[in-house]
Amino acid sequence: MDMKCEMRSESRIVLALDVTKREKALEVVEAVGSIVDAVKVNWPIILGCGISIVDELSEHADIICDMKIADIPNTNRLIVEQAVAHGARGVIAHGFVGKDSIEACIKASHGSNVFVVTEMSHPGGKEFTQPNGNRVAKMAKDVGADGVIAPATRPGRISEIRTIVGNELKILSPGVGAQGGSASDAIKAGADYIIVGRSIYNTKDPAQAANAIAKEISDL
Amino acid sequence: MDMKCEMRSESRIVLALDVTKREKALEVVEAVGSIVDAVKVNWPIILGCGISIVDELSEHADIICDMKIADIPNTNRLIVEQAVAHGARGVIAHGFVGKDSIEACIKASHGSNVFVVTEMSHPGGKEFTQPNGNRVAKMAKDVGADGVIAPATRPGRISEIRTIVGNELKILSPGVGAQGGSASDAIKAGADYIIVGRSIYNTKDPAQAANAIAKEISDL
Repeated sequence: MDMKCEMRSESRIVLALDVTKREKALEVVEAVGSIVDAVKVNWPIILGCGISIVDELSEHADIICDMKIADIPNTNRLIVEQAVAHGARGVIAHGFVGKDSIEACIKASHGSNVFVVTEMSHPGGKEFTQPNGNRVAKMAKDVGADGVIAPATRPGRISEIRTIVGNELKILSPGVGAQGGSASDAIKAGADYIIVGRSIYNTKDPAQAANAIAKEISDL
Repeated sequence: MDMKCEMRSESRIVLALDVTKREKALEVVEAVGSIVDAVKVNWPIILGCGISIVDELSEHADIICDMKIADIPNTNRLIVEQAVAHGARGVIAHGFVGKDSIEACIKASHGSNVFVVTEMSHPGGKEFTQPNGNRVAKMAKDVGADGVIAPATRPGRISEIRTIVGNELKILSPGVGAQGGSASDAIKAGADYIIVGRSIYNTKDPAQAANAIAKEISDL
């Protein structure tokens, strides 16, 4: 996933590697690193293994640090600097904390990608993120973010957010699989990438599972 | 800061230990650990030193992990479990991700404190967190959080949030000192604790600086 340049968009899959053990993480990434476009890691594995896990995984795939960064500008800057220093090709930040906080992420990203959460995919995402999601998407576009996160669990919202961000920003959609969203529906609604976790890493053959989803998408 | 029981409230200060080096962190905490009520650490130091820094610092003070936790319930749970396992007495989570995500934090906290961010203290905090702050405060109270975070930079908002959360929830107020907020104004407006960073750790004598702020508060 050479995210700043032309997107390769081979599989249009970002793997959500929500495991907490180093060995399991490496095993899965070695199996699917060449199939998926990027691999997203979150705090639990970073807390368990240290930030050096990002360097290790980066040898097998482009890594997006899904840190849901949501602090004042100076703290956001320090977090992004560390992620990028350890090889992250992208970070995910919350737009809810305001324009200045996102600008700080972009400034610190040094060519890596900044993706902004507009609306979250879980039930609680409807309470505060949904009513503000369109304004957050507009802000993300205005400040020059590389993409936004919009819920595959609500394809209608992906379409709506696409009309706001246009085609310059990528849309990454979590919630496919275990959370109930469909890869096909999310892509048809306008997502550039779907984010899939358990439906890949919790299978006997993660490569086969990833290939099956990639085929589902390419057959659309 | 025996946060779940009667508050000692000796100094009513929470130190925001926004340094990134282990040696500096330990030096400051050893100097002021017995003066302040708690010490708040953020992601940059955890990324730099690993989560074991929380265990180390816990030997000198009650530690609040200001992780601005802001994810789906299952991820929130995993983050809180790790913080608590490493000795954190409190965690800070964002309320705008929804009630279910905060409930997951509380369930995972096992007697440690969960503080919910209502409105952020920086300029960008006015864009999305301020218009939703009262509803987030109400939600934090309803789900049984231990306290909320409200901006010392806007004392009027502390008073307003106090009327919403009543006296059962503690109010911790960041933004005192370098960010422009005043300790006295925040306490007068209803904060239980002020959160102070650079005005303590960036001085030649952090203990003296902490004592001076504690005196300012006790003289009110």
